[in-house]
Amino acid sequence: MQKIIILIHCEDQKGIIAAVTDFIVRVEGNIIYIDQHVDVEQNVFFMRLECELTNKNSNLEAIKNVFEISIATDFKMSWEIHTKEQKPKMALFVSKYDHCLFDILGRFSAGEFNVEIPLIVSNHEDLRSVAQRFDIPFYCIPFTKENKEEGEKQQIEILRKYKIDFIVLARYMQIITPNLITLYENKIINIHHSFLPAFPGAKPYHSAFKRGVKIIGATSHYVTNELDEGPIIEQDTTRVSHINSIDDFIMKGRDLERIVLARAIKLHAERKTMVYNNKTVVFS
Amino acid sequence: MQKIIILIHCEDQKGIIAAVTDFIVRVEGNIIYIDQHVDVEQNVFFMRLECELTNKNSNLEAIKNVFEISIATDFKMSWEIHTKEQKPKMALFVSKYDHCLFDILGRFSAGEFNVEIPLIVSNHEDLRSVAQRFDIPFYCIPFTKENKEEGEKQQIEILRKYKIDFIVLARYMQIITPNLITLYENKIINIHHSFLPAFPGAKPYHSAFKRGVKIIGATSHYVTNELDEGPIIEQDTTRVSHINSIDDFIMKGRDLERIVLARAIKLHAERKTMVYNNKTVVFS
Amino acid sequence: MQKIIILIHCEDQKGIIAAVTDFIVRVEGNIIYIDQHVDVEQNVFFMRLECELTNKNSNLEAIKNVFEISIATDFKMSWEIHTKEQKPKMALFVSKYDHCLFDILGRFSAGEFNVEIPLIVSNHEDLRSVAQRFDIPFYCIPFTKENKEEGEKQQIEILRKYKIDFIVLARYMQIITPNLITLYENKIINIHHSFLPAFPGAKPYHSAFKRGVKIIGATSHYVTNELDEGPIIEQDTTRVSHINSIDDFIMKGRDLERIVLARAIKLHAERKTMVYNNKTVVFS
Amino acid sequence: MQKIIILIHCEDQKGIIAAVTDFIVRVEGNIIYIDQHVDVEQNVFFMRLECELTNKNSNLEAIKNVFEISIATDFKMSWEIHTKEQKPKMALFVSKYDHCLFDILGRFSAGEFNVEIPLIVSNHEDLRSVAQRFDIPFYCIPFTKENKEEGEKQQIEILRKYKIDFIVLARYMQIITPNLITLYENKIINIHHSFLPAFPGAKPYHSAFKRGVKIIGATSHYVTNELDEGPIIEQDTTRVSHINSIDDFIMKGRDLERIVLARAIKLHAERKTMVYNNKTVVFS
Repeated sequence: MQKIIILIHCEDQKGIIAAVTDFIVRVEGNIIYIDQHVDVEQNVFFMRLECELTNKNSNLEAIKNVFEISIATDFKMSWEIHTKEQKPKMALFVSKYDHCLFDILGRFSAGEFNVEIPLIVSNHEDLRSVAQRFDIPFYCIPFTKENKEEGEKQQIEILRKYKIDFIVLARYMQIITPNLITLYENKIINIHHSFLPAFPGAKPYHSAFKRGVKIIGATSHYVTNELDEGPIIEQDTTRVSHINSIDDFIMKGRDLERIVLARAIKLHAERKTMVYNNKTVVFS
Repeated sequence: MQKIIILIHCEDQKGIIAAVTDFIVRVEGNIIYIDQHVDVEQNVFFMRLECELTNKNSNLEAIKNVFEISIATDFKMSWEIHTKEQKPKMALFVSKYDHCLFDILGRFSAGEFNVEIPLIVSNHEDLRSVAQRFDIPFYCIPFTKENKEEGEKQQIEILRKYKIDFIVLARYMQIITPNLITLYENKIINIHHSFLPAFPGAKPYHSAFKRGVKIIGATSHYVTNELDEGPIIEQDTTRVSHINSIDDFIMKGRDLERIVLARAIKLHAERKTMVYNNKTVVFS
Repeated sequence: MQKIIILIHCEDQKGIIAAVTDFIVRVEGNIIYIDQHVDVEQNVFFMRLECELTNKNSNLEAIKNVFEISIATDFKMSWEIHTKEQKPKMALFVSKYDHCLFDILGRFSAGEFNVEIPLIVSNHEDLRSVAQRFDIPFYCIPFTKENKEEGEKQQIEILRKYKIDFIVLARYMQIITPNLITLYENKIINIHHSFLPAFPGAKPYHSAFKRGVKIIGATSHYVTNELDEGPIIEQDTTRVSHINSIDDFIMKGRDLERIVLARAIKLHAERKTMVYNNKTVVFS
Repeated sequence: MQKIIILIHCEDQKGIIAAVTDFIVRVEGNIIYIDQHVDVEQNVFFMRLECELTNKNSNLEAIKNVFEISIATDFKMSWEIHTKEQKPKMALFVSKYDHCLFDILGRFSAGEFNVEIPLIVSNHEDLRSVAQRFDIPFYCIPFTKENKEEGEKQQIEILRKYKIDFIVLARYMQIITPNLITLYENKIINIHHSFLPAFPGAKPYHSAFKRGVKIIGATSHYVTNELDEGPIIEQDTTRVSHINSIDDFIMKGRDLERIVLARAIKLHAERKTMVYNNKTVVFS
């Protein structure tokens, strides 16, 4: 049986849930999961449904049309319908650090992510051998202040060529350009090595050490034009103490970075995140 | 506006969600929260709804009748409807340890629990002064092997007199009798000072110390006739190390006991727990 | 047997540990615990020792003198020697929030803190009844911009009268004056309701909610003249999600505040904290 | 400068610390770290020291001799002295699961473990390609009830050939034979996929699911002849809820397994663990 995922958000109004669930019955669907949230302050309604279509002859395009006409227009909804079979295509951007890359490719090999990884992009050659170990095409696109425009052009070309759905910055140490952010709005996932909003920007472990915090963190967020200010998808923390050096912070932080980024990838790939008002609704 | 909570469980079938949401529309309700779960293995459907009744003249008894006739019978549902205004009446059973009692009464005074506490029952006089500090009636009902029957009789009498809805064993060190368990099925909350199913029974901190675990826990569960085997509501854990003595385990464990029990009380009082097959569904 | 605690810090040099352990042997002490730390960056040595004096006739003042002459002077040490029997006298400063106060007094009654609590100070009358329940003198010293000088004078007078060793701000909502900070350097413990350095200042839960963080925290620190910038003693965090309102943040945060403050009090009372360079060494 | 690590345990007696620190001074060492613990119940003393030898001409064998003669004999110590430069040789035993293997090899490649990995041993061919990706020799030694003796013989031969110091069972699904355990006492590290002592033996995630726990865990321990009863090195836990299926438990558990095992390897490789009385002292 075909499984579909429906994501909806719109102004909160009476009768939305009833209308949607009624629609599911009409298209011979069986609701497996329904998640819903109302942002009371902003008066916005969010919903995520997983259904099985019990009729083998169900046509996804037809269903989308019916949904648009009979429901979405009335409630002025923003919506998406995906099938579970469609694996989103994920591009990895890396630089020189390999711990997140190893982790992601290890999990990918172990079947943890329901995605395809058509390519890895880097501004350095260093991690080409890692990509080769996992048989994934590796593109080195140098990126400096001088060739910014040309670099961006190449990046976008290659992302288009491979029909990339979303981008993961696995400790990619470059600023993403506004054009790319616009093309992939809420579709570029970064991992920042601090508990945001504490210690944004460069060298957060050094700042955390200096401040004498007893806990460090990592934060995965969608990239926006404001550095380290995008909607947070996932965070986690771990204890440190006076006995830990900056190197210990970095080592402990790596585990956080790996796990927090892996969780964010999984949530995004399973279409469990929705963005609104620079925040995320995460149906997990 | 009146707020109601509906709890449902039944065999999983097509169309339940649509039927229920449609019912809410008919009684002029506005769904605030809908939580739903299907136990795929057991094929059981669970639901919890919070709605506002927008019509001031809504009559709760009438609504219950319509629900029973038009929905519950068809789907063979087990169901409850509560108003948010009804504060459940909670009895505290204590023995000699005071840390959970202090914590619960402190939270109660601070308005954290939406309950009434009409009485505290103990098999010892020790904590009478604590009850008095918080102006709550204290009943000392001695409980020994010899007076078991008489003790139980007195307990039940007083619980009936105060129309107690649920019982919290705040480190009450006695076995609860089968009669009381039957009267308050899934309504007696215990706190056990270990991460169940590890270390059931007496002296769990001593056993944990002996085993050399690196983490200890606490478990809140509904009481059944099998000691420490009832449906788990909430658990939490904390790290220990070789430097910690048994006394340290006990001290650290107290914080777990306090918090885990407080969370379980809150979940139960807000009617966010449902029991099935010796497990809980917790809509939090 | 008398137990003593020795705290030392000085420039790191060869032979300190050997000199100190040798001294313990000479005064017929038996080391129970030795904790030591070197801040490599700053080249500072820290040590905490617990010893039993096996000679009944040991004289603490004599021991202190010998230590000063034979060890401390040579190594230019800052040092303190305490007996375990001396319970430090702790003053509680509160305002209107009662959750930390209830928690501290509950733990105090349960014997968790090795301190005396001679008094509670507040700028409001609201919590007098709580103090009375626990039979602790309560002093209401109003504190406004206008009477700052007079208020501070009264505070200092009363702290002197009761020979207070350290002060705990249990959600005391006033700025502490520089004079008081000087008198009680590294002896005033505050609880801030955020994961510092994120969200310093007022209304941190509101800011955390707005930023859409997935984890909130609480921080206990010594008070310095820079608001929320003092040496951090302890922190902890807990998960939040999109379903949590600001009120939920506040409620969940309370548990963090309680626990983090309680741990900081315990560490300070047991003389397990040392401050250097606006950071703490915590021997736990 | 050469760095050495000294591990000691013996009956607790007066003057041990003074004797050892005095010894360090005599061999021109500078203590970097001293960790010490007394098991009060068992009256056993444990110590771990890290020192720099400031004299370039220091001879490790000579130092060991002096230590044995001038200290260890008197106090009847069990002791080890290692240099930091000696990387211990670690053998990986795997079966069919690859997540721990990928994680360990990723960390190894990233320089997180101060070890050599001369070989990977498996009872199946499945993970040969992973070993090849990381250029590590892979030995498939089938292991069944029938060839137990022969299999063990081959294992021991190859471990000897490569001078293996310790063995990591990275989800190796076979029982280790008593002979191998004797040869590598407290040197075989296993990862068990539950929060021991809860759910020992086979299929712990299934048992945890059935019991309805709210938290699952993983445990790394030294292998002894009692299955899953050896000294615990490290544990960690993560939350689960009613929405999680057994497959979710397995997926979440994988992260625990990876991290807990990686921590245990690091602690062992850095010689921070000591075993006594079926428990570990972990100086971290």
